Amino acid sequence: VNDQDLKRRAELIRALPDGVVRAAVPEDTEDQRGRRGLPPLLVTAPRNTEEVAAVVRACEQAGVPVIPRGGGTGLVLGQIAIDGPPPVLISLERMTAIRAVHTGDNVLIAEAGAILADVQQAAKDVNRLFPLSLAAEGSCRIGGNLATNAGGLNVLRYGTARDLCLGLEAVLPDGEIWHGLRRLRKDNTGYDLRNLLIGSEGTLAIITAAALRLFPRPAHTGTALFVVPSPDAAMDFLNLARDMVGDFISAFELIDATGQHLLAETMPDLRLPFPEIPDWCILVELGTPELLPTEPLFESLFKRALDAGLTDNGIIAQNGAQASQLWRMRESIPEANRLTGGIAFHDISLPVSLVSEFLTSSETALRKIADVRIGVFGHLGDGNLHYNVFPAIGRRSADYGDIGGMISRSVHDSVHRFGGSFSAEHGVGRMKAAELKLYADPTRLKALTAIKNALDPSGIMNPGAVLHDNRTGIHDSCKEQG
Amino acid sequence: VNDQDLKRRAELIRALPDGVVRAAVPEDTEDQRGRRGLPPLLVTAPRNTEEVAAVVRACEQAGVPVIPRGGGTGLVLGQIAIDGPPPVLISLERMTAIRAVHTGDNVLIAEAGAILADVQQAAKDVNRLFPLSLAAEGSCRIGGNLATNAGGLNVLRYGTARDLCLGLEAVLPDGEIWHGLRRLRKDNTGYDLRNLLIGSEGTLAIITAAALRLFPRPAHTGTALFVVPSPDAAMDFLNLARDMVGDFISAFELIDATGQHLLAETMPDLRLPFPEIPDWCILVELGTPELLPTEPLFESLFKRALDAGLTDNGIIAQNGAQASQLWRMRESIPEANRLTGGIAFHDISLPVSLVSEFLTSSETALRKIADVRIGVFGHLGDGNLHYNVFPAIGRRSADYGDIGGMISRSVHDSVHRFGGSFSAEHGVGRMKAAELKLYADPTRLKALTAIKNALDPSGIMNPGAVLHDNRTGIHDSCKEQG
Repeated sequence: VNDQDLKRRAELIRALPDGVVRAAVPEDTEDQRGRRGLPPLLVTAPRNTEEVAAVVRACEQAGVPVIPRGGGTGLVLGQIAIDGPPPVLISLERMTAIRAVHTGDNVLIAEAGAILADVQQAAKDVNRLFPLSLAAEGSCRIGGNLATNAGGLNVLRYGTARDLCLGLEAVLPDGEIWHGLRRLRKDNTGYDLRNLLIGSEGTLAIITAAALRLFPRPAHTGTALFVVPSPDAAMDFLNLARDMVGDFISAFELIDATGQHLLAETMPDLRLPFPEIPDWCILVELGTPELLPTEPLFESLFKRALDAGLTDNGIIAQNGAQASQLWRMRESIPEANRLTGGIAFHDISLPVSLVSEFLTSSETALRKIADVRIGVFGHLGDGNLHYNVFPAIGRRSADYGDIGGMISRSVHDSVHRFGGSFSAEHGVGRMKAAELKLYADPTRLKALTAIKNALDPSGIMNPGAVLHDNRTGIHDSCKEQG
Repeated sequence: VNDQDLKRRAELIRALPDGVVRAAVPEDTEDQRGRRGLPPLLVTAPRNTEEVAAVVRACEQAGVPVIPRGGGTGLVLGQIAIDGPPPVLISLERMTAIRAVHTGDNVLIAEAGAILADVQQAAKDVNRLFPLSLAAEGSCRIGGNLATNAGGLNVLRYGTARDLCLGLEAVLPDGEIWHGLRRLRKDNTGYDLRNLLIGSEGTLAIITAAALRLFPRPAHTGTALFVVPSPDAAMDFLNLARDMVGDFISAFELIDATGQHLLAETMPDLRLPFPEIPDWCILVELGTPELLPTEPLFESLFKRALDAGLTDNGIIAQNGAQASQLWRMRESIPEANRLTGGIAFHDISLPVSLVSEFLTSSETALRKIADVRIGVFGHLGDGNLHYNVFPAIGRRSADYGDIGGMISRSVHDSVHRFGGSFSAEHGVGRMKAAELKLYADPTRLKALTAIKNALDPSGIMNPGAVLHDNRTGIHDSCKEQG
């Protein structure tokens, strides 16, 4: 921090509401993978929306960049400055209230700093479900979930964060407050500002509160694991299940042989469900209302899938403990991946019908670059795969030198060729801004830039994230983890 | 058309692709209620997206306004110029192809000019459902449905047009084509341009094609009509049904006594289901997969609702003919309203928990203005009511002079006070642009205007619609019909 920054800092502090500044801590500029950003000019933690607006106005007038901060669990460097002038962090950590629960409307109003797990609990307290569910739910904040349009485990049935939000309150880059906490299912009165801000990763506004949709809690939840011969068979299985049990499929996860082998190699205490590791499995969860227990549904489904040649083996959990065991296998895969040490990790989506063809094509392309091991798992029902590249058996990640960037480019090129996305649920942040520039439709990119310039003419909101073409230096050294 | 217009017309024709101009017909500038707009400078009917782009580019260069036109079934004058220089109409009538059906992805690619009923049929041909369903489905076009974010009967279960679209192809105001026909469920790569264009009523772009979501066809469909003591009881009934039968409720329609009385008065041949007209009824439709027939679900539901004091009478249709008869009553209400002749019609939405309180409050306010009869029906499950004001028994609409505007202002003021919307599903168009200015949050309005100016700096795209404050002259004489 140089003299000029110190002067700016002092000026800013004078312009801010009393008590809004707090001391910086190392966690403010680190992400979960230990990547560290530039030290901030100031850290602020406003207590209410008016204070957020006051901080933004002061920064706008001073020409100081602003980085909004939720739980800091983002994976693509959206919450950390990596170059440019030191920013003011606006942490939503003090705005954690559940402002209202409208049970009759199936709507809950939460401030942006509310921890996702607390939102889930507030819904549960009134016998409702808030279905957004992801690994970081104990520490991520709902404002960040909305800013990044978080996905997770229940997207197939309930949609992403976007689909769970009816209204927003937000501070725009000029420091004005949009009071948009409507709780209406239908409202056709002008452009969809809500969905524009959702997923904009703090570059167009700071979300301060949200009206969130609640759902009936399933009376029964059932889990099963089926062996399938191929990803195509997995898709046929999903379509069969949709015809048979409608919208009750809340999760449909694909697990490949590599994932299970890595579990066996790195976590030998974890009991794998099948004595011989199958090439492909699907983990299916059903949530049903009281009139419809899950077990007979699973039994009918298995029988029909067996007859259709889509499976030849399966486990239907008979109780909660068995269900947890099946889920533990799925949920331990990222940890096994970390323990193994990967060359490159990817969060991609594809048209579901092309997943199988993509897998063959991408593997062929990768084999030309290096002798690697490919691990695939993820939310197949959404076409969202975590596609990870590991060293061949007996080799280590370090043996491969600096080929991570080349590997990722190859994977993303294949994804692009199949009409897929290089970021299904993690967002763009600063880590993938170069990919956005490379792969986005040019007309769309021009429109997004025009929108950014129109809403944030001073360019103070989270600069460098999403739309910025000069932040590629960090790319190769920052691997994604799925 | 004056000399200068004739000159512009000739110049434009020279700049356009061969064969893209067609003769104007009266229907081009009329809406379904016979309201007539200004004659166009030219009517064009491009055969493909490149031709749409060529027309837009030529108009942009000539500074001539453009009005995109689908089926022309909009109810708020979004498709008709009422002042300003004569526009070029761009009708999508020749772009009607279903470009692809991706059964495995549950996605269909339709050009913007495809008639909604033809899209529904294309889905049915591959044993899938495209759930968007509304009165105009035989003539409205999917591009218009998306441009206005159409609602209709299945919103409760499947969402509005917005929720049914995964990707767009569109021509932007500078004549560039956005190739965005992705068919991905998850894609977090930059701002949500798709949802910004959906619902923008042709003021930000011309949608030329869309990737649409398909669903499993329900194996069983069942319909029932229940008498309920109040709108609050109707909401409790809905919440009970959600807990019991989950997401299978595809329609949940409220019908009041006035609606039934008007049916009896104007359409005496229509048989009403109950010998004595009840104050409130709900029409419920369930769509279920093959393992779950609807009748036992309806029977359990009725029994539980009876025990809870939420109903004391009901009819569960025993076959398709009986179901059609119940639906006929609901669907004949708009016609009975027209035959009666109303003072003012409104398409409003409210937080569902406040519907009952709103009804009392709004009626009290209206009674201070005039002795009127209020008719309410609509999609209660979405909080969307068609709230219509009729002459008292024995009087005629003409007896009330010019109070329609005052009545509408009173209704919309009440709606606004309860956090509702003055346009739930019909949009803003030119008819409600003044309401948008009056009721919209000022920060949001400023942001929408900035977006409009950024994407359409020449202001050629459907000028006067949505964002325009100088088009109030038409308001009082143009009544909405719900």
